Amino acid sequence: MSEAPALRQVDPAASLLLTDLYELNMYAAYLAEGMTATAVFDFFVRKLPPCRGFLLAAGLEQVVEFLEEARFSAAELDWLRGTGRFSDQVIEALAGFRFEGDLDAMPEGTVFFADEPILRVTAPLPQAQLLESRLINLLHFQTLIASKAARMVLTAPEKILLDFGLRRAHGAEAGLLAARAAYLAGFSGSATVLAEARFGVPAVGTMAHSFVQAHESEREAFLAFARARPAQVVLLLDTYDVEAAVRTAIEIAPVLAGEGINLRGVRLDSGDLAAQARLVRGLLDAAGLKEVRIFASGGLDETSLAALAPAPIDGFGIGTSLTTSTDWAALDCAYKLTEYAGTPKRKRSTGKATWPGRKQVFRRYDGNGRMAGDVLTILGDPQDGEPLLVPVLRSGQRVGTLPGLAEARARATEQLARLPEPLRRLEAGWRYPVAVAPALAALAEEADRAVAPR
Amino acid sequence: MSEAPALRQVDPAASLLLTDLYELNMYAAYLAEGMTATAVFDFFVRKLPPCRGFLLAAGLEQVVEFLEEARFSAAELDWLRGTGRFSDQVIEALAGFRFEGDLDAMPEGTVFFADEPILRVTAPLPQAQLLESRLINLLHFQTLIASKAARMVLTAPEKILLDFGLRRAHGAEAGLLAARAAYLAGFSGSATVLAEARFGVPAVGTMAHSFVQAHESEREAFLAFARARPAQVVLLLDTYDVEAAVRTAIEIAPVLAGEGINLRGVRLDSGDLAAQARLVRGLLDAAGLKEVRIFASGGLDETSLAALAPAPIDGFGIGTSLTTSTDWAALDCAYKLTEYAGTPKRKRSTGKATWPGRKQVFRRYDGNGRMAGDVLTILGDPQDGEPLLVPVLRSGQRVGTLPGLAEARARATEQLARLPEPLRRLEAGWRYPVAVAPALAALAEEADRAVAPR
Repeated sequence: MSEAPALRQVDPAASLLLTDLYELNMYAAYLAEGMTATAVFDFFVRKLPPCRGFLLAAGLEQVVEFLEEARFSAAELDWLRGTGRFSDQVIEALAGFRFEGDLDAMPEGTVFFADEPILRVTAPLPQAQLLESRLINLLHFQTLIASKAARMVLTAPEKILLDFGLRRAHGAEAGLLAARAAYLAGFSGSATVLAEARFGVPAVGTMAHSFVQAHESEREAFLAFARARPAQVVLLLDTYDVEAAVRTAIEIAPVLAGEGINLRGVRLDSGDLAAQARLVRGLLDAAGLKEVRIFASGGLDETSLAALAPAPIDGFGIGTSLTTSTDWAALDCAYKLTEYAGTPKRKRSTGKATWPGRKQVFRRYDGNGRMAGDVLTILGDPQDGEPLLVPVLRSGQRVGTLPGLAEARARATEQLARLPEPLRRLEAGWRYPVAVAPALAALAEEADRAVAPR
Repeated sequence: MSEAPALRQVDPAASLLLTDLYELNMYAAYLAEGMTATAVFDFFVRKLPPCRGFLLAAGLEQVVEFLEEARFSAAELDWLRGTGRFSDQVIEALAGFRFEGDLDAMPEGTVFFADEPILRVTAPLPQAQLLESRLINLLHFQTLIASKAARMVLTAPEKILLDFGLRRAHGAEAGLLAARAAYLAGFSGSATVLAEARFGVPAVGTMAHSFVQAHESEREAFLAFARARPAQVVLLLDTYDVEAAVRTAIEIAPVLAGEGINLRGVRLDSGDLAAQARLVRGLLDAAGLKEVRIFASGGLDETSLAALAPAPIDGFGIGTSLTTSTDWAALDCAYKLTEYAGTPKRKRSTGKATWPGRKQVFRRYDGNGRMAGDVLTILGDPQDGEPLLVPVLRSGQRVGTLPGLAEARARATEQLARLPEPLRRLEAGWRYPVAVAPALAALAEEADRAVAPR
């Protein structure tokens, strides 16, 4: 064990030591062999989860920033040297490490399917290899969450959807980037303040049960909250008894109105949300408070959103199921070598065979603008439809402007609108047609023939 | 939307803006009301997942560091001011924010059960409230992963278990802290290099399929890797054909030995691992390579570890199922107010009622040193057995030395050895006895009587 006090404050998101040791091992071996010719790697998902009919690409902006800023700090290099695992030549090479390759990718917000590369790295082999672990880590997570969020957006298109999931997200970066991915997929905002500061995701939030509990009475808590935070008064009703609480809210609404404070909404966070919402809506309407919105939260996912569709609920706060993608917490994704030094490569491991070469995905649309089928083929084999992978970096430099979060969100909205009908439903099972072009199949055979297993 | 360029490089793990907006709202409201008396909050898990018989407490060290270092930066305060949500008085109070409260907690590595607080914060109400989101985020994740890892450790006690899960962990911090939590629970190491640099978790790693693919032949790849990385030669066998690959490994072993390089192991990463391991073991043994270890990886979890127990496999690399806890990706945990200004508090929401007051958990052991039952009660109501919550901070200062990762790992080992037999099995269903002492039940009744719902 060799702990490094100098690295105690290192931001894991910004450290190239956040990698698998084998990446450094291979980097060192490639240098020793002089194997620095151009390699091509694809990132793709091998198989969709049984409960997903499509996925939504997300995380490219963070990948680009990672590639652009990938450097070893002096403290990191010192520590690596101190482990005794690497020669001075390797440490020196790492000290000069910069990503100088090309990147092609599907824009964030693009719908995609199994076996379709959403990102291609073309770079000297040691560079392309060293960045693998974190590149997957970044692209996988936001794609996972955006794909989950898209199901909620499709299920509750008329509702306000809000991310409440920071607390049970898997760590700091997961909380932050889940807010980004959910907004990209069509959510309206997030409770996570830093997501507004970093990405402009509108921050939302009201009060917790503890606020009510800390006061002598619910009435006192409601009044105090409204007076202290008059801009967005949403009162939490389920700390003790929902009916009593809504009657209190109705009773104080005119008091607050007299002070120029609007009661904007109420929130339900436990129990039978549909029944409570009907009760609350009825009482609010009867009191002339038709403009007061009802929000619901507490263990919700896309299935409960569907079940709550008829209830008079205006918006939902969705936490754990969104930010951890509880029903399927990881995608079967990979970053695989498809070409080295001009020779196409593929892996043939049981159940994990891959397509070789530099590839493109073409998407056709029907007369209504709906997606009608994709074709996976090699570069230089043009097909009908929209080519989905576009240039992002050339020799480490940006090609044009990378679309920001607002553009990615607009693209997601457009892509979701163009989904074939069966993919708009929560039930999976229907398979979108993705064809492999003859040119790619031929290249795969060629790659197989070229490999001498020994 | 108000993005803050000055915060673009902020480490989310170190930012107090990584919080829910409602925490800041409540902070502001409490200040406005002068409600700064002492509050007590408990962190606990409401209900164990159906597939877990116990949980393992982890993440306390990170919580303590978070509390000690909790500050708003000037850039963060500027941004908050710019949102127009908070008055100058609130911004000023946030500028001086320090955690000055008390912390009591179960040491990391302690086994615990539903409803048992594993952490108690005693601090001025606004302080205790503001820290909620990140405190839960930190404690929840490592506890989730350590509890998952403990199941693997119990299932495969004689095997080497290694964390391979960085790439599909949910972001940077999740990858890093999952390595810590798994090691705490008894894993032997992690592929994540930064986990060694930060926490002293031994880093392990060999080669990827791409390394084999990039070479003209497997033989060439194996020789090149062994010569470049002679200290830990573990060859990956399943890129093309396992039997051909192991025969190649056997053929080159004497060549390498002649160069002073030991073949230490081989790795299988796909297909029928048990059958392949038997084949590989047989061929290695027949060639006199009895010391060469067999490692297996690829989509493993505790169930597959149990199934592979009879196979001649020495160690396992476990990725996604460990670092995302795929079968149950979040715990039903909460951080709840239990006392304010000397008055016990509880929440009575349907299905989410909580126990009031300052509490302690006592654990009894049987004659064999096995856990025999816990009692949950209020402070000052001593029971038989070991009190599990111990002082950690007093007025923001550490009480003695916080146990480090090595001590936490030793405690986890000891705790797992003391589990009752039914909890050592993968099947859940048996319920460990946790009793509520009469003194606590009486306090709950008192808290209920004291609450006027309006």
